[in-house]
Amino acid sequence: MLLEAVFHRPKMNWSYAVDRETIHLRIRTKRGDAKQITVVYGDKYRFDKLRDTAPMEKFASDQLFDYWQTAVKPPFRRLVYGFLLESENETIWFDEKGFAEDVSKNVNTYFNFPFLNAIDVHEPPAWVKDAVFYQIFPERFANGDPSNDPDNVEPWGGQPKYNNFFGGDLQGVIDHLDHLQELGINAIYFTPIFEATTNHKYDTTDYMKIDPHFGDVETMKRLVSDCHARGIRVMLDAVFNHSGGRFQPFLDVQEKGEASAYKDWFHIREFPVSVVDGVPTYDAFAFEPHMPKLNTEHPEVQAYLLKVARYWIEEIGIDGWRLDVANEVDHQFWREFRKTVKDANPEAYILGEIWHDSLMWLQGDQFDAVMNYLFTNAVLDFFTKDAMDSKQFADDIQALQAKYPQPITEVMFNLLDSHDTARLLHMCSDDKRRMKLAALFQLTYSGAPCIYYGDEIGLTGANDPDCRRCMEWDKDKQDSELFDFYKNLISLRKEHAALRTGSLKFLYAPSKEQVLVYERRDQQAVFVIAMNAAESNQSITFPLEQGRYEEVFTGEALSSDGTDASIELPAYGYTVYKKIS
Amino acid sequence: MLLEAVFHRPKMNWSYAVDRETIHLRIRTKRGDAKQITVVYGDKYRFDKLRDTAPMEKFASDQLFDYWQTAVKPPFRRLVYGFLLESENETIWFDEKGFAEDVSKNVNTYFNFPFLNAIDVHEPPAWVKDAVFYQIFPERFANGDPSNDPDNVEPWGGQPKYNNFFGGDLQGVIDHLDHLQELGINAIYFTPIFEATTNHKYDTTDYMKIDPHFGDVETMKRLVSDCHARGIRVMLDAVFNHSGGRFQPFLDVQEKGEASAYKDWFHIREFPVSVVDGVPTYDAFAFEPHMPKLNTEHPEVQAYLLKVARYWIEEIGIDGWRLDVANEVDHQFWREFRKTVKDANPEAYILGEIWHDSLMWLQGDQFDAVMNYLFTNAVLDFFTKDAMDSKQFADDIQALQAKYPQPITEVMFNLLDSHDTARLLHMCSDDKRRMKLAALFQLTYSGAPCIYYGDEIGLTGANDPDCRRCMEWDKDKQDSELFDFYKNLISLRKEHAALRTGSLKFLYAPSKEQVLVYERRDQQAVFVIAMNAAESNQSITFPLEQGRYEEVFTGEALSSDGTDASIELPAYGYTVYKKIS
Repeated sequence: MLLEAVFHRPKMNWSYAVDRETIHLRIRTKRGDAKQITVVYGDKYRFDKLRDTAPMEKFASDQLFDYWQTAVKPPFRRLVYGFLLESENETIWFDEKGFAEDVSKNVNTYFNFPFLNAIDVHEPPAWVKDAVFYQIFPERFANGDPSNDPDNVEPWGGQPKYNNFFGGDLQGVIDHLDHLQELGINAIYFTPIFEATTNHKYDTTDYMKIDPHFGDVETMKRLVSDCHARGIRVMLDAVFNHSGGRFQPFLDVQEKGEASAYKDWFHIREFPVSVVDGVPTYDAFAFEPHMPKLNTEHPEVQAYLLKVARYWIEEIGIDGWRLDVANEVDHQFWREFRKTVKDANPEAYILGEIWHDSLMWLQGDQFDAVMNYLFTNAVLDFFTKDAMDSKQFADDIQALQAKYPQPITEVMFNLLDSHDTARLLHMCSDDKRRMKLAALFQLTYSGAPCIYYGDEIGLTGANDPDCRRCMEWDKDKQDSELFDFYKNLISLRKEHAALRTGSLKFLYAPSKEQVLVYERRDQQAVFVIAMNAAESNQSITFPLEQGRYEEVFTGEALSSDGTDASIELPAYGYTVYKKIS
Repeated sequence: MLLEAVFHRPKMNWSYAVDRETIHLRIRTKRGDAKQITVVYGDKYRFDKLRDTAPMEKFASDQLFDYWQTAVKPPFRRLVYGFLLESENETIWFDEKGFAEDVSKNVNTYFNFPFLNAIDVHEPPAWVKDAVFYQIFPERFANGDPSNDPDNVEPWGGQPKYNNFFGGDLQGVIDHLDHLQELGINAIYFTPIFEATTNHKYDTTDYMKIDPHFGDVETMKRLVSDCHARGIRVMLDAVFNHSGGRFQPFLDVQEKGEASAYKDWFHIREFPVSVVDGVPTYDAFAFEPHMPKLNTEHPEVQAYLLKVARYWIEEIGIDGWRLDVANEVDHQFWREFRKTVKDANPEAYILGEIWHDSLMWLQGDQFDAVMNYLFTNAVLDFFTKDAMDSKQFADDIQALQAKYPQPITEVMFNLLDSHDTARLLHMCSDDKRRMKLAALFQLTYSGAPCIYYGDEIGLTGANDPDCRRCMEWDKDKQDSELFDFYKNLISLRKEHAALRTGSLKFLYAPSKEQVLVYERRDQQAVFVIAMNAAESNQSITFPLEQGRYEEVFTGEALSSDGTDASIELPAYGYTVYKKIS
């Protein structure tokens, strides 16, 4: 066995509590190396009597590695453990001391999960596993109240520019909840709704006030209460990394310089604040002068932002916070934030905007999940860019499953596009067949899928500002077939937990091809999903467990004697089978 | 290059802030694989202009891997980076997306250290790097006040048993500070001094009261103030995982059962509390009925223990807390503990008792360091047990240097023995030559060495209770030559930062041999230390940088033309050269 490939380190994504009794243990080996892995575990204070073994299961494989997992329940919540790795011709023991020929008799060399303390268990809100999100960019969703339009409002449906306004507001959302309910989503992610100068509102002027062009606190209360009545949760966007340039404390600093009582609310390198060669004399989001970075280490700033976090939960009953530019804010702040938010609403979802590997924010003390751009990238590369073959896609997805604890994977925020990217349809060169494949994968994968407003009816658009077009409400201009596609898939997902939290197995994902067959399985149901991401018909033969299967949309039958099954798929075609016996 | 061996994951011990400007980046490769590694890094928001490269240095190698490190200072505290790995015949790019042939032009695939926030920098107290600790087990150090002796006190110097008492106390420590000052130590670690029933006091009865057999708060204040006057810091032992069986809240639970107001202060599985087949019906330290585990998740328990933590800092001015059974207490509690302690004394040292890999307690939010038993094990295995050869020892030590961030390695608590183990001399089969080699390594390695009381004058003893013998104060029975050995080494260490925080390089550590040559180096000084851990004379030839060297104790000269140097060492001999030109 290749010893250099073997990896385990206690905690993180390698050993973690799933609930108050259960610990997941994981190990990595070179792909194809180990045939069997057994965990030897016990209680270090009574190892003679409390010693047991558990087989591990290979739950993921990527280009280089296999990943193995098992669950154990230490009776006294203390755990020591080691791994017995077996290949065709070798048996190797692995524990904290390294590799050895035999299982260690010295319990002191074992790996430790010293104690399963309940408070340390990272238990994300249970509802998120079952959520389908819908992202709304309020200025562009619907204008429900022309009386609050900005002065310079343009006619609905015009060309989006960086600085123009179309009058979308919260009343517009309230007016169209039927649309969302029919689609079947059960959670909304709103980009910022607090007072700000821009159309995107990421430059907050007042965190305690709804933007007057969107409505007021009463409108927002109505919206949340209407949503809740329909079983739809509401998540708002917390822009705490930076304020807007017209945030009163920053105005004060601009005016009074070092004499300002707010001078330490920001990171000012030089007074008076100014911009030299495009670089502000203060820290900012990127180098944006009108987005000064907040000093979240300052007690007053902390107190203020935590008040904001609590206020909107308590005052209007929101169900979560999405955290803008979350990885540039200090970890200590997020730990306080989590305590405040969970105290106000233990079921609130805390979602960080991080586009990269996020392990150190997901240890239970900070976020519940992040915007899963590593997922986004893989899906887009495979389905929209032809930038990888099926094998690499399957490898990337499985690597992602190994990257985070399983309960976190199940609540990751799986988006394919957003106000920050081109629209999915655009990235598919406006080919809806491709778009459907990407959405099908998204909606049959673990984690909370998010649909960017309008995708479901065929809205397209290149990068910002084009991806922020006005929602199309003219039924004749909506793609109802696409809407039904989303609706049916969401309904299927909601009906079957296997599509949300079942195990994932790629049955067929060859190199140099663009076809994919995978299985989602739990105790209740088995689904087999096949896709052809190539631009020609494909005959696909793949290993299939013995049984009878039925296509969930067409009712078409498929059966397997336990060897292979064969299907034909047209260019960009797909099929979803459910095992019926 | 062996791709399976390459490892990097942002944060943890792989990328971390060293101070408010500097980030260390590290990567792992298969041993011997890469000849050169270059980091390409920059600011993601202005990568065109703020892009740079830095060579990495191989700072450690173990059995399987090389570890590389470099330091970068991102001007705007945001950092993206990737690695260019070069072997004799290959060049490979490695970033978050994996391996590629060329340096990525897409900054979005780079690894991220999103922002260096000052509050997240793990800056352990600076004094610890320069500390030499001395561990005192008060009941056995010196009896300075016979008036507070326990009733059943036995004559000083008798045979230690699990339950007997010899009358050691705090006045005894005060009386012997001259001894400590002469030895040269500058910090004391006291095992528990709070009221408890046992001689070791790990079963606290009252956390707010000095054990009356040791003295009272006034004695302790005098002790701390006398220590401080001599430049000696004081660290106490916080036994917060469990209380003693006679802790008032537990007595209340025993008496009133479920009706007790303190029933949630512990983890009771079944009332009335009892012991069935040797297993208490409540969580305990190990299965010790008289050490009930405290429920540190309970707000009242938290408030009580945090009050204790703050009280002894504020009331008597202690410089640190050593945390007993630290890894079985919840992480959340330790986060609150750190805030309380650092608020009371920002320079306080927070030291966890963890015998195993401790990375997840050392991220800046919990401990400053742990008792470095992984170091202990390696040193004992090599110097006292002949359980490994020089190569494996050098590998293990270097693996340990890679395991934690460098600033943490520099403040780790490096003990060779304690009240929990046999004494160093005993483990050396009472051979002081061996003992000196182990101590020499300890005192010339990074981290805070700790000497267990009496080791310096030749006290020996097998496992508990024998390792807790009374200190020998009869000068005639003390080994003054050993004392001078420790004293001289401590003095040398204090004089030269190179021995504390310099780089470490093994110049000679062959397999199947027991000889070792290593170098400690900084800008000011270069030391070359050679040891012969074999029981026969050895001639050692090792590569040595060109220059003239002088033995620090004998003045003997050594010179090198830049190739090899040769020395002779008797059985268990050593030599310490300092480069003089």
